[in-house]
Amino acid sequence: MRARLLEATVELLVEKGFSGTTTTLVSERAGVSRGAQLHHFPTKNDLVVAAVTHLTERRGEELAAAASQLPAGKQRTRAVIQMLGDHFAGPVFTAALELWVAARTDETLLEAVAPLEQVVGRETHKMTVQLLGADESQPGVRELIQATLDLVRGLGLASTLGDDTRRRRRILDQWAATLETTLGFEARFARTSTTDKEQ
Amino acid sequence: MRARLLEATVELLVEKGFSGTTTTLVSERAGVSRGAQLHHFPTKNDLVVAAVTHLTERRGEELAAAASQLPAGKQRTRAVIQMLGDHFAGPVFTAALELWVAARTDETLLEAVAPLEQVVGRETHKMTVQLLGADESQPGVRELIQATLDLVRGLGLASTLGDDTRRRRRILDQWAATLETTLGFEARFARTSTTDKEQ
Repeated sequence: MRARLLEATVELLVEKGFSGTTTTLVSERAGVSRGAQLHHFPTKNDLVVAAVTHLTERRGEELAAAASQLPAGKQRTRAVIQMLGDHFAGPVFTAALELWVAARTDETLLEAVAPLEQVVGRETHKMTVQLLGADESQPGVRELIQATLDLVRGLGLASTLGDDTRRRRRILDQWAATLETTLGFEARFARTSTTDKEQ
Repeated sequence: MRARLLEATVELLVEKGFSGTTTTLVSERAGVSRGAQLHHFPTKNDLVVAAVTHLTERRGEELAAAASQLPAGKQRTRAVIQMLGDHFAGPVFTAALELWVAARTDETLLEAVAPLEQVVGRETHKMTVQLLGADESQPGVRELIQATLDLVRGLGLASTLGDDTRRRRRILDQWAATLETTLGFEARFARTSTTDKEQ
């Protein structure tokens, strides 16, 4: 029942936004009585904070599942970037965005959302480093990974106002190529300390 | 009086978010009578749509003013990137973000916001190309400019949950360096069609 309530909250955040997500709509959507709902979550904030946590776990699972399907070899960088781009253009990001923006002007919500976002941010960063095989001891590599995650966040925000899948694909193509050149260069530089021919 | 009402609306969007911006608060903040306000803007949507347009103009002016202060020479790329980063981390972006997210689940608002965002997006892109002296006829250059704008949008979104000026500065340092290398290479390649020594 708890899971049904949280799933319904996430769905409603995507469909109706934060202010349109009422506790009445959640209980209707989840098929749970008002009494039972109030027992689990006395206020909208309780419900939404639990949904944030639930969302965080779903975001982690979604990314881990997508990561396990990635190819090895030359196509890997592009595939990692696409996976991140898809994730940040999907419903889990949209629901998180609603909470994020609402939390900006709601102190109670911010207290729950900000630390969770820090954890998610750190874990997503760590996962991306591993998936790309990036060496963060090289200068600039850490910042490029962070830039990659801020890029897909920006693309995710743009996608909420309309479908721009084709634009996103072209940008991610180019980003992956640039990242590959830069990370490749750094890695080679670290291994050989000689000047390799660069493309 | 109209300008005062629109400024008050933008201020309230930043302070209280979209749902916390009520017509009563706007008339109080602007020091305008309810009657006069209703004469100019009969509904909240009228007011907010006018504020979107007003915001769009302010965004354009803000960027143009910042652009006129940019240095020439080697530091220019970094300065352009910093200008964009600062802009997307400022209050005008925050107010636009509130409208953007509200418009996602409000059809009337979306009808006003989506075309404006397209115009702003195109103009910001054009300005960035000019400021960087980028040659979009070269493969990948257009996408790298778009990526730069999506990156600063993502950084702007991150900054709404807390001050991360230092993190942003490091990321923009690195991105400016990467962009400089990539655009520099493209430009040189276009001029000489020979293999120059690359750093």
